[in-house]
Formats: sequence, C-alpha cells, structure tokens
Amino acid sequence: MTGSGKTSAYGAAGVDIDAQERGLAQVRRLARDTFTAGVLGDIGGFGGLFRPALEGLREPVLVASADGVGTKLMVARMAGDYSTVGRDLVNHCVDDILVQGALPLFFLDYLAAGTLEPERMVELVRGVAAGCKDNGCALLGGETAEMPGFYQPGDYELAGFIVGLVDRQDLLDGSRVETGNFLVGLPATGLHTNGYSLARRILFDRLGLGIDDPAPWAKADAGAGAKARGKRKAGGRPPRVGEELLAPHPSYLAALRPLLRHPALRAVAHITGGGLTDNLPRALPPGTHAEILTRTWKVPEIFRFLQEQGEVETEEMFRVFNMGIGMVLVVERSELGQVLVPLRRAGQPGTVIGTVQKGGSAVVYADPPPEPWLPAAPDSSTKAGR
Amino acid sequence: MTGSGKTSAYGAAGVDIDAQERGLAQVRRLARDTFTAGVLGDIGGFGGLFRPALEGLREPVLVASADGVGTKLMVARMAGDYSTVGRDLVNHCVDDILVQGALPLFFLDYLAAGTLEPERMVELVRGVAAGCKDNGCALLGGETAEMPGFYQPGDYELAGFIVGLVDRQDLLDGSRVETGNFLVGLPATGLHTNGYSLARRILFDRLGLGIDDPAPWAKADAGAGAKARGKRKAGGRPPRVGEELLAPHPSYLAALRPLLRHPALRAVAHITGGGLTDNLPRALPPGTHAEILTRTWKVPEIFRFLQEQGEVETEEMFRVFNMGIGMVLVVERSELGQVLVPLRRAGQPGTVIGTVQKGGSAVVYADPPPEPWLPAAPDSSTKAGR
Repeated sequence: MTGSGKTSAYGAAGVDIDAQERGLAQVRRLARDTFTAGVLGDIGGFGGLFRPALEGLREPVLVASADGVGTKLMVARMAGDYSTVGRDLVNHCVDDILVQGALPLFFLDYLAAGTLEPERMVELVRGVAAGCKDNGCALLGGETAEMPGFYQPGDYELAGFIVGLVDRQDLLDGSRVETGNFLVGLPATGLHTNGYSLARRILFDRLGLGIDDPAPWAKADAGAGAKARGKRKAGGRPPRVGEELLAPHPSYLAALRPLLRHPALRAVAHITGGGLTDNLPRALPPGTHAEILTRTWKVPEIFRFLQEQGEVETEEMFRVFNMGIGMVLVVERSELGQVLVPLRRAGQPGTVIGTVQKGGSAVVYADPPPEPWLPAAPDSSTKAGR
Repeated sequence: MTGSGKTSAYGAAGVDIDAQERGLAQVRRLARDTFTAGVLGDIGGFGGLFRPALEGLREPVLVASADGVGTKLMVARMAGDYSTVGRDLVNHCVDDILVQGALPLFFLDYLAAGTLEPERMVELVRGVAAGCKDNGCALLGGETAEMPGFYQPGDYELAGFIVGLVDRQDLLDGSRVETGNFLVGLPATGLHTNGYSLARRILFDRLGLGIDDPAPWAKADAGAGAKARGKRKAGGRPPRVGEELLAPHPSYLAALRPLLRHPALRAVAHITGGGLTDNLPRALPPGTHAEILTRTWKVPEIFRFLQEQGEVETEEMFRVFNMGIGMVLVVERSELGQVLVPLRRAGQPGTVIGTVQKGGSAVVYADPPPEPWLPAAPDSSTKAGR
C-alpha cells in the first residue's frame, strides 16, 4: 500500500485533494517568485524560514499584524473579479506596520472556500504575490482550506499576516508627538477596505444598482477607482460600480520609506478598519487630540454620494469611511517642507488637514480658520485628496 | 463634531461597532494576560511589537506558519461549544514550527463572523489565549471581522499565524536524516484538525448520529477524546459524539523541547492537513522513503469505526486521518533510548512505527517483520496510540 491512491471517499465529502494539489503547485510557483534574500529553503516545509538581516540594528523589533479584506470580498464576487483583493490585503498589512516605522519582511495568507476552484485560487494568490513583490516582501507561506458547507458556493475568505522589522530607536510610537504638530493627509484611492457593508447596503439594497452599472458619482470626478487602477476604458466610458468599489488599497511604503528616520516625522496613522475618528487617536500620545479641518481637502464624490443616498450623518461618515484620507502623518511644523517635497516626488501629494492639540483624546472636526499658517498648496490638486 | 457618536446607519447594515468594542475590551485583557518578556507596548497599536531575545544565537532564523481549524468549526457550532477550537489552532501552529526546531515567540488570530456575538467572541479568544499561555507564546494581536451576509448565522471562522525562532545551526531540516533511522510515533488525542469533512459526512449524514449521542466507538476504548480532555463525566457515562470530535489538538512542545538539540533527533514530521502519507515525506530528504509498520500501534477505535461505517479504503484512511499518530520523530537507531526516556518522562510515550529506507519518496505501509531490532515497549499502553 502506498500513498499514491485516489481520494474517492474524501472527494465525495466535497474535498478534491488532487484538484487542490494542481492549483497549489501554481500557488507555490507564484510564492517562490516573491522570495527575497532572507528566505531559507523552499515552500513545503511545515513552517516558512526567514533569516532577517540584523546587521547594524541595535535592538531589532519585530512588528506583526493580521488583517482581512472584509466584505469587499462580496463585491469581488459580484464583479466576478478576484484579481485585486490580494493586493488590497498585502498593502493593508504593509501600511499597518509602516506606521510604526517597520519595513516588511514576509507575509502569509489564509485562503478558504467551500470548494477551491483552482483558477480562482490562483487568481487570488496571484494578487497576493503581486502585492508582496511590489513591497519587497516575501510570500513565505500560507494556508489553503477547503471547507465544504461552511462557505457559500463562490465565496472566498482571505486573511493575511505580515511581519516587519524596525530598530527600536526608529520606532514611531507617538512618543515624540507635540502639541502644534501638523497633520498631513495622504490621499486615499477609494474606500480601501473600510465600510463595505454600509456601502453595499446603500448602493445595492437601497438604490438597486448593479455591479456593472455606470457609477453615478463618477461623472463628477471622472472615476476615482478607475483612475487609481489606470484602468480607464477606451472610449472614455464612465467607470462601473464594481470597478470603483474594487479600487485597491494602496501601499504607502514607497512614499514614506525615505521619511521614516526623518526627525520631522513624529507619528503616522493608518486610516483603516474605520475612519479618522477611531484611527487618529491610536497614533497620538495621551493628553492630546487631533483637530481636523474638514475643508482642507476635497472629499471624493463616492463618499458624498454614499452620504446623500444613505442619509448618513457626517459624524458617522468620518467614523466609518476614510473620506479620502488614507494615511495621516504627524509632522513638526517648522519642517513641513522637508516632508511634503519628498512625498510629492514619490507621487503622494500631502495636504495639511489639521493639527495636534492639547487635552482630550477624541478627534475634533472643524472648518479651517483663515489663519496665515495654513500653507498654500503648490497646486489645487494637492488638496483634492488624490 | 466629535468621534463619540452612535453608529446607527452602520449598525443597520449589520455591524454593531459598540457591541464589538465591549467584547474587544475583554479580548484585549485576555491577550494582555499572555504577554511575555518580548512584548513591547500594549494592544491597540497598528501592529504588535515584539523584541526577540537574540543573545547567544549565531544566526537567528524566524519560522512562521499560518493555519486554520477547518470544518472542526462546524462541529463546535453543532455542539454549541467554541471553547476548545482556539486551543486547537494554537497547538496546531506551535507543532508546525516545532518540527523545524523553533520555539514560539508570538501568535496572531483572525476571527470572523456574520455577527460577532460578544460572548462567543470572548469564548473563542479565551481558548486562543489559553493555548498561547500554555505554550509560552504571546498573543500579540489579531483581527476581528464582522462580515454580515458572508458567514451563516452562528458560524465563526478562526485562523491563526505563529512566528517562532531557531538558531540556524539547530534547524531540523531533514538534512541529517539517514537510511535506517527509526520513526518514532507520538500518540494523537483524536482527529486533531484533519478529516472532519469526511468524518461529519459519515457520522451525521450517513449514520444520522446526533452531536449529543453517545459515541458508538467509545465503548471499546473508553473515549479517547474525553480521556484526553480529562472530562470523563460523573457516573462513567460514555463520551458524546461532540466531545470525542472536539478533543483538542495537543501541543507536543513540552515533550519535544528537551530533545530539540539532541544529536539523535534528526527530523520531525507533524501529521496535519492529512495523514502519514503526505506528511512524512515533508520531513525526509530526497532519495529516501518511510516504511511504516502498521501493526506497531493500536489505531484508535474512532478511526476503525469511521473506516468501517464509511467503507473507506485503508490507503485513503492513512491519507486523510492521522490514524492515532500525531507526530513522528526521526531518530538515530543507536540512541533510541535517549529519546524514548525523556518522552516518557514528559508523558508522551513514543513508539517505533517504522524506519527510513533508501530510494523513492512515498510512504510504504507494511506489517512489522518479526525482527529482533523492534524494541519491546515498556508496557502495552505505549503502543496503543490512545
């Protein structure tokens, strides 16, 4: 008796080990293609092996984060397009550790479905691998689970896990934040991975829109998502609802990397899992709060549309959605230019959207006062949140 | 406008952020209670921070693994008992990196449901935290996702990620395995996390058993799962189907730890995600194969029952289920005693179940030949695999 046999009974229970194996072989090739110098050995061991480059670090600190894509997965399913959510997941994870000053080492994914269709599985992992490659992060391993009866046919769950490295002295932990520091917002490319349950309810349940309908909000600003993905279709047709909603969560690594050890950069907040309201306080020290000047950037049309059609309070909008700001840098006032110029060079126009103020802990939203300290942006587009 | 407002519209979309927050506060307390010396800062940052103790390591290698619990989650749901699957997940992950010689540093979980009932969420994370504590592993963070409409009501998905550390010179990578080495099996405590789709189909669909029915196979060996969990009920009533199926995946860390740098220990295979057939080759070098002597241990009654009632080929049983062997150690023949004695002292009786042979790569199953080298077990229970 050898182990080369058929898996008839298990197959009958809904698990086709052989079909899974074919897809997994391709998944392994995709992962191998992301391998960086730190990876030891090959895929197939029980754990993935990574030798971090520790030379020159005084006190190496590992920074780890786990994330999912949320119900954006249901939009991917409606659109029949699972090519983008892998990149969403990786970029999301990269941004989560980036805000503490860490650069990514490796990533692992967890992929589950009722029946793993090999083509879908490969499509999903191809996105994960592409995201890893873009961020110089090895796809060190992952788990692929076929769970018949647990997931609805066609649904895929995707979660991920990242580990990065930072020298303890370079940790961005909020301890150097001071009252009066500027809050510099970086533009979001769409909803990122937040608020999809509410957005779906408004767009699909309340308005009855179809995934392939032209996005009604896109007339006004020519399609945030489509532009972000460079996918503007020939003939200038307006972007579809699905395209807009699937605009990938960007990685801010390339833009922030040159700034990570700059003394002017005091902290960074990733606007994720909610809006500015819940995320900004995570980057600020106790006894300070953020004052956000809500007219300093143009909130993208998709959020205005969702608010109007969903009859959502402004307060709640800022709690649930990123409102066009994907990342907030806390910057020493006198050195603002030294942060804005490299950002602009990296294609990420930063906009001052508020300040750190003494006392409290919540985020306070206010209109911008006509004060001279608010620097004029080099051109109007830098304030457009894009 | 401040960030303290209600989340009415989002709540209407199925996401109750406030209820989630209450549960999350308790989850944070559970996690904090697992913190080891390496953890920096507190929960609530964007990423978890961990400073590994690198003193004395020549070439630190990180070992990482991602895992899920599979459709064992559906058994937990049927039994209304989510207290054990967290431990399953952590122990599974610990074992995955242990077989490469690594000790766990930290763990992150991914928990998702359509609606996160705070009590259920806490019950699940309590199991994860208990598993982490038992293994000296910090629960450094995690993601909790409420995905209305994606999961069926009452269903919970649980995945996990572990990172461990090993000095490169102590890596168990199979390179020191030699022809003639013994294969020493350690007893499983039940199905662990493998083969639940097939088991459920046989027990519930084919036989129509209820989750609270007495386990029909348990008469013969008094309830593997119940014994393993020390949960034998008063009055000696036979264990229930649910109890047996939910017997937790054990951690072999305490038993293997004293042996990790022993020159006699050449490699270790974790029998997971399938049976001996697919897992043993992962621990062996190319050009060798495992010969398993199938009568050297007593296959637990649950597997015999599943095979008989499900009319499953023996070959497939060894491919899908662990058949009573949770871990296989590859041991130098002449030093067998130096491995078996510490194992027994740690409460893990090891049994020689085969040898490494030259050529091929598949697992070959054979009856044990009546040769003098097969050592007599100290008592019969060591060969029972429980």
